[in-house]
Amino acid sequence: MIRIIMHGCNGKMGQVIGSLLAEDREAELVAGIDVFDDGHNAYPVFRNIRECDVEADCLIDFSSASAVDDMLDYCVEKSLPCVLCTTGLREEQLQKAEKAAESIAVLRSANMSLGINTLLKLLKNAAAILAPAGFDMEIVERHHRLKVDAPSGTALALADAINGELGNEYNYVYDRSGRREKRPEKEIGISAVRGGTIVGDHDVIFAGADEVITFSHTAYSKAVFGKGAVQAAKFLAGKPAGRYNMSDVINGAG
Amino acid sequence: MIRIIMHGCNGKMGQVIGSLLAEDREAELVAGIDVFDDGHNAYPVFRNIRECDVEADCLIDFSSASAVDDMLDYCVEKSLPCVLCTTGLREEQLQKAEKAAESIAVLRSANMSLGINTLLKLLKNAAAILAPAGFDMEIVERHHRLKVDAPSGTALALADAINGELGNEYNYVYDRSGRREKRPEKEIGISAVRGGTIVGDHDVIFAGADEVITFSHTAYSKAVFGKGAVQAAKFLAGKPAGRYNMSDVINGAG
Amino acid sequence: MIRIIMHGCNGKMGQVIGSLLAEDREAELVAGIDVFDDGHNAYPVFRNIRECDVEADCLIDFSSASAVDDMLDYCVEKSLPCVLCTTGLREEQLQKAEKAAESIAVLRSANMSLGINTLLKLLKNAAAILAPAGFDMEIVERHHRLKVDAPSGTALALADAINGELGNEYNYVYDRSGRREKRPEKEIGISAVRGGTIVGDHDVIFAGADEVITFSHTAYSKAVFGKGAVQAAKFLAGKPAGRYNMSDVINGAG
Amino acid sequence: MIRIIMHGCNGKMGQVIGSLLAEDREAELVAGIDVFDDGHNAYPVFRNIRECDVEADCLIDFSSASAVDDMLDYCVEKSLPCVLCTTGLREEQLQKAEKAAESIAVLRSANMSLGINTLLKLLKNAAAILAPAGFDMEIVERHHRLKVDAPSGTALALADAINGELGNEYNYVYDRSGRREKRPEKEIGISAVRGGTIVGDHDVIFAGADEVITFSHTAYSKAVFGKGAVQAAKFLAGKPAGRYNMSDVINGAG
Repeated sequence: MIRIIMHGCNGKMGQVIGSLLAEDREAELVAGIDVFDDGHNAYPVFRNIRECDVEADCLIDFSSASAVDDMLDYCVEKSLPCVLCTTGLREEQLQKAEKAAESIAVLRSANMSLGINTLLKLLKNAAAILAPAGFDMEIVERHHRLKVDAPSGTALALADAINGELGNEYNYVYDRSGRREKRPEKEIGISAVRGGTIVGDHDVIFAGADEVITFSHTAYSKAVFGKGAVQAAKFLAGKPAGRYNMSDVINGAG
Repeated sequence: MIRIIMHGCNGKMGQVIGSLLAEDREAELVAGIDVFDDGHNAYPVFRNIRECDVEADCLIDFSSASAVDDMLDYCVEKSLPCVLCTTGLREEQLQKAEKAAESIAVLRSANMSLGINTLLKLLKNAAAILAPAGFDMEIVERHHRLKVDAPSGTALALADAINGELGNEYNYVYDRSGRREKRPEKEIGISAVRGGTIVGDHDVIFAGADEVITFSHTAYSKAVFGKGAVQAAKFLAGKPAGRYNMSDVINGAG
Repeated sequence: MIRIIMHGCNGKMGQVIGSLLAEDREAELVAGIDVFDDGHNAYPVFRNIRECDVEADCLIDFSSASAVDDMLDYCVEKSLPCVLCTTGLREEQLQKAEKAAESIAVLRSANMSLGINTLLKLLKNAAAILAPAGFDMEIVERHHRLKVDAPSGTALALADAINGELGNEYNYVYDRSGRREKRPEKEIGISAVRGGTIVGDHDVIFAGADEVITFSHTAYSKAVFGKGAVQAAKFLAGKPAGRYNMSDVINGAG
Repeated sequence: MIRIIMHGCNGKMGQVIGSLLAEDREAELVAGIDVFDDGHNAYPVFRNIRECDVEADCLIDFSSASAVDDMLDYCVEKSLPCVLCTTGLREEQLQKAEKAAESIAVLRSANMSLGINTLLKLLKNAAAILAPAGFDMEIVERHHRLKVDAPSGTALALADAINGELGNEYNYVYDRSGRREKRPEKEIGISAVRGGTIVGDHDVIFAGADEVITFSHTAYSKAVFGKGAVQAAKFLAGKPAGRYNMSDVINGAG
């Protein structure tokens, strides 16, 4: 059994992962970390990661940016591989994660679903064929009304995948209402729709002369993100130091 | 035969309407107005509407904002019903059109397609049911890379239809990238996608708790707008003074 | 508090409704009926509805066709309004439900979501405008891989709504692979997609000359059906004998 | 200038290709073949390919199955590369095309658009990742009301691309209305929607646990198919004997 520490165990994603692992035969939660706890979990919960003395093979982090520094220190000290899912990190924290990856295995991803990570891979191929043929690229994402940031980290990651493939020459535009001009060629429009309880939809549109190709991903529940994180943790346990991402998991499993 | 004058006859829509009427048994073009002309049309073309001395039953206008004033004067003087399709009119021009409608029949519409005008009607019913039940409303439109304005006049008309039904309490938002807050309740997000040669797609999204309803319209060619204009002209010929819109045409024909 | 009996309380929908009502201030479950029970519910559970002696204001049924006869007898005997959600009933059972509606309030619906029931209403208006204008109508539904019947009851209800509005002249076609002919005019194609865990998507397509309108509904969880059933039960409590459907609930609430 | 013979020059696609080449600087039509001709084309037209004595670098065929045998004989005799776009060929004709490819360059494709051919390529990668991860695959195509065959050749080509990648173990199903069972694992459902003037839409759906990825292609006019054929002809001129397909053109151009 792969032993996992859940950092941020009482948040929404922490609970989703707890449910998934309760029925898993290869991995289990052996400890959780959360500031708030009412004792309802089946595993021991610590208020601060410093207090955790449970042996483990991997850590999954879905906490908040403010808790990430201590967590990285802990993983380095204990030589514990780490699946880092918290978003909105500051530049110094990203560098700290890079530094940690010199001594432990670190996997960081804006979106843990197999579907989005497959798209990230395919979009590079699509962009390499379609952009030189004159197709324009646009992204539309849809999320629930409570999401505070826009566009989503996943939408930006999709745009970055395309842009990186094409020499990083494209500008991202979030608003066209102010201007009166035809679309510049080296532009990727990113639109954010908000409403209801939409878990997360992403459309990547390639619009050419008289034809349009759209790559769409719909998440029906947060479980897809939890499942990806669990898959990543299983993959990461026992791996040598280094930066990993979900495409390593996909290729390793493929 | 209903005799029609085509104002802006050598523009894209003027030519589309010419083709449609060439095969029509109920209506025909008897004259065109355009600053540029190479004599290729089957009907007489005048550079300025003032010069036109051809008798007609209706006028269709797909010209430019600067030509609309003369055209309205002409229609009033000749008691000629007028289908006004040029967009981007100034406030004074809109008032002039209102004034003209006191003495002639004037039909003005942001989008002449039967599909969009049917949606405009149904969306009011949808909004009246779904908004009180907590659904959020969003609009996404997609157009070709050459369109200079955003969002489209049709997207705004769709938003206005919903907003009008709900007491005009909603704000339109075109950009969410700058802010960090959950979605305000009284908001309609309008997103503009641009790329390739997309003729015109509009999605109106009602997002509720665990369910989403989307009303989508796709135009495959500019002919749908021309066809609507022709239908409107046939309807308007012989009608008394007043303001008309496409829903009158739909109901009259239904 | 409106007191509700849950018939089929340990099925998926019974449990969903239990969760919804656990947090409801206007209605509560006072008893459940299910052949299988392990005592985990907060309310008393009876193996057979005959044994239930708990007073209530309404009953919600999400059981199986074989349990519906006893349930209808019970409701008639106790003068208990009944929200009948079990599908796949035999013709005699449908008649028995009709008969029951002479002495108690009975609401039957293929799909309890507000979204689908709003669509059912709007589609009639759409069909009345678009079918005479030459639009063809098609339905595509998508459901999870475990669904055994096809097409879905909801897809058929959507087709029936359109067909009823148009004089019931249309044939439904489920397979075009065998034939080689252009599309007959009085036909509604209904396609069933199956895969993964898709909760339930329905597209109703109106395809005309150079334009297409699509009405789409996506359910993100079974909770939408439970919520509709609860809303229906609240509406039905205290109502006189008769047949009701979800559009009565919508109009009553709207 | 690359000199092209248009076989089937007065059909819809032949005319589309004529328009495209009228403005092309690299290639031109030097002759056409068609049983019906009124002399309106700018190039000489022959009723039978046997009569054609015009020198050329490539031939594009959008004719009918009955004319394909003579055309292949002609190309072999003249050592003329051939872009073969006519569909619905008999098994013997397919073999004849194979045989011809031993002495001349032959490119055959069910769909000439760059978009569909890019999808054919990407879908193989997607299937190799997603099918082992438990995703189900489904295809929905939408075409105009006049299309007589179903499903479309393109839909079958998309299914074949997936199936070929996965060891050809999948069955195609066109109708689920008759059966009552959960979805078999090794199945690809293919649904055909017909209506209006839809040029050609294809959705390839990968449905997994709580997430769905959809690859969609929309054609807005037949010009996309003509453009692909022209691109193929330019690519094929001067190439050695052999079987080619659109992905060679894409890779050669990419």
